[in-house]
Amino acid sequence: MIQIYTGNGKGKTTAALGLGLRAVGAGKKVLLIQFLKDGQSSEIKTIKKIPNFDVKVFGKKGFVSKNNLKKTDYDLAQRGFSFFKKALEDKKYDLIILDEINVVLDFKLLKTNDLINLIKEEEKTEIVLTGRSVLKKLIKTADLVTEMKEIKHYFKKIKARKGIEY
Amino acid sequence: MIQIYTGNGKGKTTAALGLGLRAVGAGKKVLLIQFLKDGQSSEIKTIKKIPNFDVKVFGKKGFVSKNNLKKTDYDLAQRGFSFFKKALEDKKYDLIILDEINVVLDFKLLKTNDLINLIKEEEKTEIVLTGRSVLKKLIKTADLVTEMKEIKHYFKKIKARKGIEY
Repeated sequence: MIQIYTGNGKGKTTAALGLGLRAVGAGKKVLLIQFLKDGQSSEIKTIKKIPNFDVKVFGKKGFVSKNNLKKTDYDLAQRGFSFFKKALEDKKYDLIILDEINVVLDFKLLKTNDLINLIKEEEKTEIVLTGRSVLKKLIKTADLVTEMKEIKHYFKKIKARKGIEY
Repeated sequence: MIQIYTGNGKGKTTAALGLGLRAVGAGKKVLLIQFLKDGQSSEIKTIKKIPNFDVKVFGKKGFVSKNNLKKTDYDLAQRGFSFFKKALEDKKYDLIILDEINVVLDFKLLKTNDLINLIKEEEKTEIVLTGRSVLKKLIKTADLVTEMKEIKHYFKKIKARKGIEY
């Protein structure tokens, strides 16, 4: 099955990670592949200590801008995709989370059809895709799509807080 | 700050748990208080092994129906609320998740104003409320509200899967 968490609200990545916790608790093996981020977010530290919950990061420090993509951004996305492909082939994991992959595809760092062709027939591994701006053809391919919709955002302008926002 | 995760989509509880992972990774202490559920969901097993992530369950086996509430349901909700109140007073936790509390309030198992009065002035502890059917006055009290909106649900009728749905 393919699940998507998208939208402008908080909770996309954390929902995928919580699902990872659940799967591990049921004796399943989970892999988190993180795109665009540099793996410095606090939750990664916790996950690394959880048995059967593997993490692999294909991102870099700093903000990736759609209008100013670098060769490194394409290379990292491609390496992440190859790693995912290999992990799927190895059938080692029951659940694989592709964190921020929706943004990667929106930025055209990878070809959407390459991903769709790889996962559309997948039967063993549950696949979770996160990130804003999910493409329509990805929604068509998915089995379950949840939009995290921002209903109310912090009134006061707050600085992103370690352990809460990242 | 008070955060709410609500809506008919998948990912409310898991988003709160993922936030818990993040907080723990930043050296914070987290408490999950679960209402209505019996604590048998797979993720609880994983959380119990994570240091600084405590869990307390105030639910019972089986489905709680709004139209057929029992004395036990009121008692459990009240005990959960008292436990929460004590935990807040003790200032032991940086983040407290009240899982399914929105449903508890919608079912009138607790008085919404009792909760609001307790948390509206809270400054030290981050409080996360989850569950469908959140009441308007709770939204008014919260700092951040995300609606998990179901965009697409499993086409094929599937049975809830251990490690994915529970």
